[in-house]
Amino acid sequence: MVYLNGNFIPKEKAFISVMDRGFLFGDGVYEVFPVYNKKIIGFEAHLSRLQDGLDAINIKNPHSNDDWKSLIKKIISFNIKNANQAIYLQISRGCDQNRKHTYDELDPTIYIQSSLIGPREKNSLFKGKSAITREDIRWLKSNTKATSLLANTLYAQEAKENNAEEAILLRDGFVTEASSSNVFIVKDNCIYTHPKGRNILPGITRDITITLAKKLDIKVNETLSSKKQLMEADEVWITSSTREILPITLIDNNIINTGLAGPIWSLIYDQYQLLKTA
Amino acid sequence: MVYLNGNFIPKEKAFISVMDRGFLFGDGVYEVFPVYNKKIIGFEAHLSRLQDGLDAINIKNPHSNDDWKSLIKKIISFNIKNANQAIYLQISRGCDQNRKHTYDELDPTIYIQSSLIGPREKNSLFKGKSAITREDIRWLKSNTKATSLLANTLYAQEAKENNAEEAILLRDGFVTEASSSNVFIVKDNCIYTHPKGRNILPGITRDITITLAKKLDIKVNETLSSKKQLMEADEVWITSSTREILPITLIDNNIINTGLAGPIWSLIYDQYQLLKTA
Repeated sequence: MVYLNGNFIPKEKAFISVMDRGFLFGDGVYEVFPVYNKKIIGFEAHLSRLQDGLDAINIKNPHSNDDWKSLIKKIISFNIKNANQAIYLQISRGCDQNRKHTYDELDPTIYIQSSLIGPREKNSLFKGKSAITREDIRWLKSNTKATSLLANTLYAQEAKENNAEEAILLRDGFVTEASSSNVFIVKDNCIYTHPKGRNILPGITRDITITLAKKLDIKVNETLSSKKQLMEADEVWITSSTREILPITLIDNNIINTGLAGPIWSLIYDQYQLLKTA
Repeated sequence: MVYLNGNFIPKEKAFISVMDRGFLFGDGVYEVFPVYNKKIIGFEAHLSRLQDGLDAINIKNPHSNDDWKSLIKKIISFNIKNANQAIYLQISRGCDQNRKHTYDELDPTIYIQSSLIGPREKNSLFKGKSAITREDIRWLKSNTKATSLLANTLYAQEAKENNAEEAILLRDGFVTEASSSNVFIVKDNCIYTHPKGRNILPGITRDITITLAKKLDIKVNETLSSKKQLMEADEVWITSSTREILPITLIDNNIINTGLAGPIWSLIYDQYQLLKTA
């Protein structure tokens, strides 16, 4: 069961008009809420970012946080056989009579669905995943979690076709983020990640990772890292709501450090797991 | 009547799945064909650019050019009460079972509709239109006519809210194009426009304009123009399939030259009108 504009219906019956600006213009925003045994990680932070996204593209928030909570909890309960779920929530600007770039205030289209988050056992992660690097050619509002995602999907596909988990993006020679995750680098027991701003999505898992690191007294520098620093890192991770904190051990076919997940990752990973049951 | 995936149906009955990647990811391309009294301007050029767009995002062209021609002609005939029509054709990658950035080969979604092009009498155009300028923050594949158009729609809306026809975009201080049109500048009887490449859409009307200018022995330079050159131009125009060649006489509330459409515009405009009946 999914939610579409006021109704809980089977996914295969969820249809929208071709005039939906989500379809015609990629004119919408979205969020993905990770849920572990009914517990939503970073719920308030996701709702706050949703509001930022709506503000950035001038869509009035159609619901209060309490309304969102009850809609999302209902979707979770419909899919409870999935112990671990990713709740996807999309708001597009809605349908107009005619296709035109400009808009008046419309009734937004609201779509919510659940999908399975597969198990991600620590033992299976030590080997790490591989990544490719690409030039970051995305728009300069990458801090808005918008559905105009064509660039991101093309990068993801390129990664897949290179048997890689992710495409790590570089703008002007510096690592920004990956196609659908943030990037962290560890060097000499310090953690480095791109500062917030228009070049990266302010990941909720990114924030959580930084908070956990600081709790462990590990230094975090939100600063630029070059490709050289990426390739010579002690550890590289990507973070996202559904991937959690994932070690990257091979980049453009070059082995990063030992080729295995590192000790700092291991510490942070363990702390993150505690959030699922806290 | 519109066309959707094999069927000619009323627009209000044209629905797509929420799982369409056009809706979830802005994962598609489109074309707009201008039609005057059943004559399509630049038909082959539009189909060729459609192919380029499909190639750029790895969607197999679902139809031959002859098939496209017959589908488009049918839509034109259904809407023949509109003497002047804009035929909108969108191809999205299609629907997947689950939402994931990567894709396998899917059945593309094909949507075609007609809308009215209003009359644009020369006498009404001498006063010209106004524009605002903005930083060009779009992705660096702006030569692909993709439906991930959120940036473009936000610019168009900003223009509208400033009572302007268009937002003229500047990257690194140089004019690229406008939110949904190309930009031309005239200075000392020479025409200037941004060269093709990843910063601008290769407009069909842009190409036609250049061809017409050369026929009239007017020099055309495909080169960069600064904001200063824009503001001090003798004439500024925007071109697009539905706007044709439109004089811009006020930019950021500054009057361009005399504040009226110029003589070179007038010559090219007349030549363009001949194409409608040729």
